[in-house]
Amino acid sequence: MARNKYPEETVKRILDVAEELFMTKGYEQTTMADIVNHLGGLTKGAVYHHFKSKEDIFEAVFERANRSVVERAEAIISNRSLSGIEKIRALDESSAEGPSADMLRAMRPSSDPVQNSRLLAREFADALEVAHRYIEPVIREGVADGTVSSEFPRETAEVMLLLANLWMVPLFHPLADESEFERRVSVLVRVMHALGVDLVDWKSFDPARMWDDSWGTLARDFIADDGGEDDRS
Amino acid sequence: MARNKYPEETVKRILDVAEELFMTKGYEQTTMADIVNHLGGLTKGAVYHHFKSKEDIFEAVFERANRSVVERAEAIISNRSLSGIEKIRALDESSAEGPSADMLRAMRPSSDPVQNSRLLAREFADALEVAHRYIEPVIREGVADGTVSSEFPRETAEVMLLLANLWMVPLFHPLADESEFERRVSVLVRVMHALGVDLVDWKSFDPARMWDDSWGTLARDFIADDGGEDDRS
Repeated sequence: MARNKYPEETVKRILDVAEELFMTKGYEQTTMADIVNHLGGLTKGAVYHHFKSKEDIFEAVFERANRSVVERAEAIISNRSLSGIEKIRALDESSAEGPSADMLRAMRPSSDPVQNSRLLAREFADALEVAHRYIEPVIREGVADGTVSSEFPRETAEVMLLLANLWMVPLFHPLADESEFERRVSVLVRVMHALGVDLVDWKSFDPARMWDDSWGTLARDFIADDGGEDDRS
Repeated sequence: MARNKYPEETVKRILDVAEELFMTKGYEQTTMADIVNHLGGLTKGAVYHHFKSKEDIFEAVFERANRSVVERAEAIISNRSLSGIEKIRALDESSAEGPSADMLRAMRPSSDPVQNSRLLAREFADALEVAHRYIEPVIREGVADGTVSSEFPRETAEVMLLLANLWMVPLFHPLADESEFERRVSVLVRVMHALGVDLVDWKSFDPARMWDDSWGTLARDFIADDGGEDDRS
């Protein structure tokens, strides 16, 4: 096959196949050989021509899945009719939705962080990047328009993203039961309140109602998929 | 060499050599072949007889380095003369000291979390384990003796350990300057205060003074080693 004639097509096929394999077999269990084998007709050389390693393919798959989340975030950021705190809440809600969340859900990586260290590291790096690129400037806007009272915008943004993405969500941190998720939500809301950012309406906040928002939905899917396995420790 | 005659000796030699390599070359850059080559006389088979992979060796090296930290933690926990909050403060101080901190310092892994995903994942899993095994029960003690006012002991312990070990320390999260560390300390202290655990004497707290405690020392060593490189993003 003339691999250089339609390089975008080739890249797309590689990413489609790899994404499918990551989501069915799991990222750690998928090898470069698996990916090549499922690309019927494409040679190993052709795949390596575009991607040096499985890690590189994963980055590209993840980035592609994340593109619509990034676009939504940009739209929220530039929406002049929203106050700082409204933007933070909209970004928070939006980040638990979309194809990258669906992908993680489907990839169902083992919740053992060491088994899935690559994915954990990617989530860690992404959390800090999103914190710096979107949340920190929006916290500063909120301070300017009086809807946020943060003394430490950068650090507050980092804590929010790390706790929301790496701790509250049961991806690497299984939930024993629904009440544990409600406790995590309560703690995150309290932490952010102490740092001057009210993620929810503080007075009417009810953690049980968080199950209906996008984070609750994501958490519920992970619990449901766990099939009763409880390997917290 | 009669490898089965003194298996503990063999394991110790493997761990010594591997630790030295991890600390000089860095974990990611060290291969099983490097380890075997530096074990003059020991065959590849002998090494694989004891450890399936470099990852397994790393776990064992890390666990060995951590043993004295665990012993100190057990001593703090069972010290009946300390209140709950005194135990939390002693555990917090103790965890930034000792051979495992020295090892991380010397291993100087690249601060890119994706490059060092294995180490990040190990720190993440350890943080949760320490939270559940030591901090959560001690928070409950503090609630019982009135020195802590936590509503969510488990979640509070998890947030404390994750933020202290994965966020405050610049291992995977470089510091631009000293004031950034002071801001992180201030945020962690404020977060824990909001969750009912005063890591420091709240009224006389001065973040600049944190440079003199063990976390500050650890942070300072990482900054110093950075050699002016600033790749935060």
